[in-house]
Amino acid sequence: MDAVLQYLQTNQQTALDELFEFLSIPSVSADSAFQPEMQRCAEFVRNAMTKAGLTAEIIPTKGHPIVYGERIEDPSLPTVLVYGHYDVQPPDPLNLWTTPPFEPQIRDGKIFARGATDDKGQLFTHLKSIQAWTETTGKLPVNVKFLIEGEEEVGSDNLEHFLQAHKERLKADVAVISDTSQYGDGIPAITYGLRGIIAAEVRLTGPSKDLHSGIYGGSIANPANAVAKLCGALVGDDGRVQIPGFYDDVAELSAMEKQQFADLPFSETGFLNEIGSGALFGEEGFTTLERRWARPTCDINGIFGGYTGEGPKTIVPSKATAKITCRLVPGQNPEKIMDSLKSFLQERCPPGVKFEFQSFHGCEAFAFDPTSPWITAASEAVETAFGKAPVFIREGGSIPVVSSFQQILGIDTLLLGWGRNTDNLHSPDEHFYVKDFHNGILASTHLWPKLAAVEA
Amino acid sequence: MDAVLQYLQTNQQTALDELFEFLSIPSVSADSAFQPEMQRCAEFVRNAMTKAGLTAEIIPTKGHPIVYGERIEDPSLPTVLVYGHYDVQPPDPLNLWTTPPFEPQIRDGKIFARGATDDKGQLFTHLKSIQAWTETTGKLPVNVKFLIEGEEEVGSDNLEHFLQAHKERLKADVAVISDTSQYGDGIPAITYGLRGIIAAEVRLTGPSKDLHSGIYGGSIANPANAVAKLCGALVGDDGRVQIPGFYDDVAELSAMEKQQFADLPFSETGFLNEIGSGALFGEEGFTTLERRWARPTCDINGIFGGYTGEGPKTIVPSKATAKITCRLVPGQNPEKIMDSLKSFLQERCPPGVKFEFQSFHGCEAFAFDPTSPWITAASEAVETAFGKAPVFIREGGSIPVVSSFQQILGIDTLLLGWGRNTDNLHSPDEHFYVKDFHNGILASTHLWPKLAAVEA
Repeated sequence: MDAVLQYLQTNQQTALDELFEFLSIPSVSADSAFQPEMQRCAEFVRNAMTKAGLTAEIIPTKGHPIVYGERIEDPSLPTVLVYGHYDVQPPDPLNLWTTPPFEPQIRDGKIFARGATDDKGQLFTHLKSIQAWTETTGKLPVNVKFLIEGEEEVGSDNLEHFLQAHKERLKADVAVISDTSQYGDGIPAITYGLRGIIAAEVRLTGPSKDLHSGIYGGSIANPANAVAKLCGALVGDDGRVQIPGFYDDVAELSAMEKQQFADLPFSETGFLNEIGSGALFGEEGFTTLERRWARPTCDINGIFGGYTGEGPKTIVPSKATAKITCRLVPGQNPEKIMDSLKSFLQERCPPGVKFEFQSFHGCEAFAFDPTSPWITAASEAVETAFGKAPVFIREGGSIPVVSSFQQILGIDTLLLGWGRNTDNLHSPDEHFYVKDFHNGILASTHLWPKLAAVEA
Repeated sequence: MDAVLQYLQTNQQTALDELFEFLSIPSVSADSAFQPEMQRCAEFVRNAMTKAGLTAEIIPTKGHPIVYGERIEDPSLPTVLVYGHYDVQPPDPLNLWTTPPFEPQIRDGKIFARGATDDKGQLFTHLKSIQAWTETTGKLPVNVKFLIEGEEEVGSDNLEHFLQAHKERLKADVAVISDTSQYGDGIPAITYGLRGIIAAEVRLTGPSKDLHSGIYGGSIANPANAVAKLCGALVGDDGRVQIPGFYDDVAELSAMEKQQFADLPFSETGFLNEIGSGALFGEEGFTTLERRWARPTCDINGIFGGYTGEGPKTIVPSKATAKITCRLVPGQNPEKIMDSLKSFLQERCPPGVKFEFQSFHGCEAFAFDPTSPWITAASEAVETAFGKAPVFIREGGSIPVVSSFQQILGIDTLLLGWGRNTDNLHSPDEHFYVKDFHNGILASTHLWPKLAAVEA
């Protein structure tokens, strides 16, 4: 182990240089214009796997390719499936970035780039720790399988099919994902629950073209008024989602969980400063952490229709669109909620406005028992690397693959986050602390022998 | 008169060529990028006035310049003030135009270009008729003053100041504006009423940047949900505007007016086909013509916030905006309605969302007595040119200058529309029938001696 740790020390700059190369590739999965960059990025990941001592290949899907690599040391050892994603969120609005999103730069001890923490920087720690083990000792304490996909930010449409098709090949004892966050500065965390998600788009079409609002206004339904009417009804003044039955199957938090959340250091003022907002707002009767981690939501992610340029334009627009996501909690069924959302919107659509509804993807929420020995093993590795025992928290985000691993492969997932939720995920100036990157590699390095010991 | 009519016949192609030159100038007043084109367009208008025998000049304002020209034949003759505007609506969405908006083309007897009917093509008829009179007879039957502005499509912000400042110079007995439409194919019309307007923009800001909807969703108000909530409440399911007091001062239609509207040929099916809409929708208890001409509205002209690209993006957006116009009818006070609109929106704004409200411009509705001798004179001129007596109608659009002329100059306005409301005003593929253009010149040519006779 000493030799492995010495190797990490010696190769810190190399690891950082390689990460920069990874971050320079604009692998935006949502926008088809970036297709060639997705392929280039997959090749980068495959090469990094090979360097780490894995047998690796790029496997095409109907969408962006999956990169798969493995190293089976000994069938009697436990097998760990590591998951990550090489695709990133669209970088817009570009003008709000201090430096270009695909030209990584270190400022104030942070690596700034789209994907720095979500998820390139985090997944890369596991490849570097594996490389440290193989290059130093010639072998690994466990068997590893790496599954790195390119469609996480667009709903992982082809992943489930891949998991089903390669069920045997992907067989493992536990999964590891680093795509979550620490709880705060100096407070590492293991995440034991995630919210689920559904995402949809509603498109309304009224007249076949934009019309003069003087000549026609008042005589036909306006799709922009309609999109506002439909979407404006989704959340009540009490912060509760108004879709009928929305809360029916929600698993309420236990008293112990409420207490654990309440014990965590949390400053409402600090939180508001962090996000640059003037006041909290959410479901009545719940704390901010409860609202973020364990209560469902309905957010409009984008709304647009009609004239968006400078000054006024006196039209009745032809079309209006809204993009909507609901975050789900344990108990809620994505399909049922999607159907209810659609009905809720459709029945509010005025005459003469064509209603189109597209559902993108959905996944159930996830929560598992924090007393499992896998969790204990991971906790020890994290404590060794970060110098402090992790707290056990939930996350408000969605990692659909976690429920797929449970359903298809029958394994639990260790959510080990090296980043911070102040890292501007999905926002301009996304970043990842250099220190978190190196500590992540260190924790990952300790993780393999700890996991090996679980089965022993 | 015969010589003048002969001149028109001979110069039909020249008039059309000159109009094409006029239409080729992209004089978009709403977008500051087109500033140089606005100046070029003003110069074109000044030159056209000079050609017509007027003394003309370009007068700068705080915004786009006004072009003014006059010809005083004899102080004892009546003086007619002709108003028009050389600015046009923004042409977007560009991809819906069959041919580029600023490359005029004739297809199926129609001139296609932005501004073809609103208002370049229509105002140009008066310059051509004046030119026919001066070039043929060396004089005019009346004194004329031409006031052609460049800010009609952005609220004529500097016009009122101009009218106040040049009150004496602009003194006239009656005004003429051709910026309305015929009632239908072969049914010329004189418009005796117009709706007023207020225009505003509401800008909502939540967090200082777009946030991950998983990490933050549920704990702060989402500006996109908020803009939908505010705007979605504006119009009820019964088609009535929900702003308190909105209908308090509305002048109801007289039984005679209701009958006149009911007597006009109108096909609901034809109307829906014309605009490509599947069903009518509007204020309960009123016919479509009543809703369009004599009932107030509240339309969202544009709404936008958050992600508008391809696919989903899981964010809580930082900002959301809506552009709103209300059409007003006689009795309603624009300032009072603007204040009520602002309050209505502001009191629905959730905590943590910054509310900004910008009002662009407003004007009262207009309606005058159709038995005036000026109207009779104009009616005779129109009948001679178009071969049919005009019907007396209202218009749903707003021409703020009409109320300014009334208030500041103390004169009534003859609204003589040569276009059709199927001409795609403010929409892609705006056009003007070649026949309407030539008939307009003819009617204008007959108008001057008819108006001269009123005062005799």
